[in-house]
Amino acid sequence: MTERRSTGIVYLVGAGPGDPKLLTLRGKECLAQADVVLYDYLANPLLLSHAPESAERVYVGRRGKGKYPAQEEINRLLTDRAQAGKTVVRLKGGDPFVFGRGGEEAEALAAAGIPFEVVPGVTAAVAAPAYAGIPVTHRTMASTVTFVTGHEDPDKPETALEWPRLASSHGTLVFLMGMKNLRSIVAQLLTEGRPTTTPVAIIRWGTRAAQQTVEGCLADIVDKAEAAKLEPPTVIVVGDVVRLRRQLNWFERRP
Amino acid sequence: MTERRSTGIVYLVGAGPGDPKLLTLRGKECLAQADVVLYDYLANPLLLSHAPESAERVYVGRRGKGKYPAQEEINRLLTDRAQAGKTVVRLKGGDPFVFGRGGEEAEALAAAGIPFEVVPGVTAAVAAPAYAGIPVTHRTMASTVTFVTGHEDPDKPETALEWPRLASSHGTLVFLMGMKNLRSIVAQLLTEGRPTTTPVAIIRWGTRAAQQTVEGCLADIVDKAEAAKLEPPTVIVVGDVVRLRRQLNWFERRP
Repeated sequence: MTERRSTGIVYLVGAGPGDPKLLTLRGKECLAQADVVLYDYLANPLLLSHAPESAERVYVGRRGKGKYPAQEEINRLLTDRAQAGKTVVRLKGGDPFVFGRGGEEAEALAAAGIPFEVVPGVTAAVAAPAYAGIPVTHRTMASTVTFVTGHEDPDKPETALEWPRLASSHGTLVFLMGMKNLRSIVAQLLTEGRPTTTPVAIIRWGTRAAQQTVEGCLADIVDKAEAAKLEPPTVIVVGDVVRLRRQLNWFERRP
Repeated sequence: MTERRSTGIVYLVGAGPGDPKLLTLRGKECLAQADVVLYDYLANPLLLSHAPESAERVYVGRRGKGKYPAQEEINRLLTDRAQAGKTVVRLKGGDPFVFGRGGEEAEALAAAGIPFEVVPGVTAAVAAPAYAGIPVTHRTMASTVTFVTGHEDPDKPETALEWPRLASSHGTLVFLMGMKNLRSIVAQLLTEGRPTTTPVAIIRWGTRAAQQTVEGCLADIVDKAEAAKLEPPTVIVVGDVVRLRRQLNWFERRP
């Protein structure tokens, strides 16, 4: 005998970076209990198979500048369904709190008095490089790693990014969602004094079977990415650790 | 009919941050196939139950300055077992490539010609804050997050860390393994100009049932941590996002 709760619950679940096996056990468990799943462009749709057939599936993806539900609309959907007593899974690519506005969704739920739980996920910022043979930290090469949202155009005067600081770092930089701003990201790093020889790798659809990696340095990566016609979604890694790919590129070399 | 491979394979598996449900599906699958599991201090020992009873279990934990196998010894164990044809799981707390020397282990395996795969995990740097109600990034508060190894004493002249850069950041800083250097980390951030009111949270055993969080600011966090007798392992979060914990602290408030 289970009693129907009058208010439901929302699970903010990290879908992981793309490889559906990189979902967590807890994420799978939440999906199996879902009455409703709201999912992203970056969440692998194969993961929906863990939800009951009867569950409502709502695509709330954002992609480029096309039409997509505003954040307020997503917040409203989460709140409405939970207030109707539903168990709601908000499936977000990567980790819910590494960019992607999971914090804002949690704030909206807290403000509405709706119980929620966060199920962290494997972030593409670490996993896409790992599948390309690049450890984002290394004892002798990088004692820090910084994740940066590449959505913010560094040419905008009001940008919140801190280019001198980023450029001066000896640590690894990982840009998420940076493909459209690649040219200006590279230009800013060079302007701020990063050497032209600094290694860069761009990984598209990291950890999926379709993973593709373009490797170069700050001097030539823009041309190489254009020649390869690289499109989003990508993860851009800047730093000496990219050199380790030569020895460690296990995934793309698999039989 | 399966043929015994003459050389085995090593899976470098992220055990996740502590909550055993934050293991990935792929990590569980690798454990289920293991002939040998080498595991860390930070990998939750409950995860060993996913391995066959017959599997050899080898504890290679490091804790403080006590006696523990040197990295070369761990590399040798991995190599020897794989060369004997075994399926070896190297279970590492968090993610194998976020500190913790997974890169060095992969290099040793590549040099020895041993097949290996990397199974990324949920890093405590993101998940411990998430379970404490702290999103490490936020659209209006932090457009970057930097993970820093707290093992390096910032008072050492030869430290590879970049204190002025770190101190000047408006992004979130997350220190892993920083508890023993807390006093000097805080002193350096203050010396470099971070305001005394900068929010700080220290999370011990993040995502486990025993999770404990101490919250303060740069001015008082050392005293508060001492009063609470906080010991490793901890994750230290510095930045405005710590303030969101007031609304978002879902895990420690659970019924």
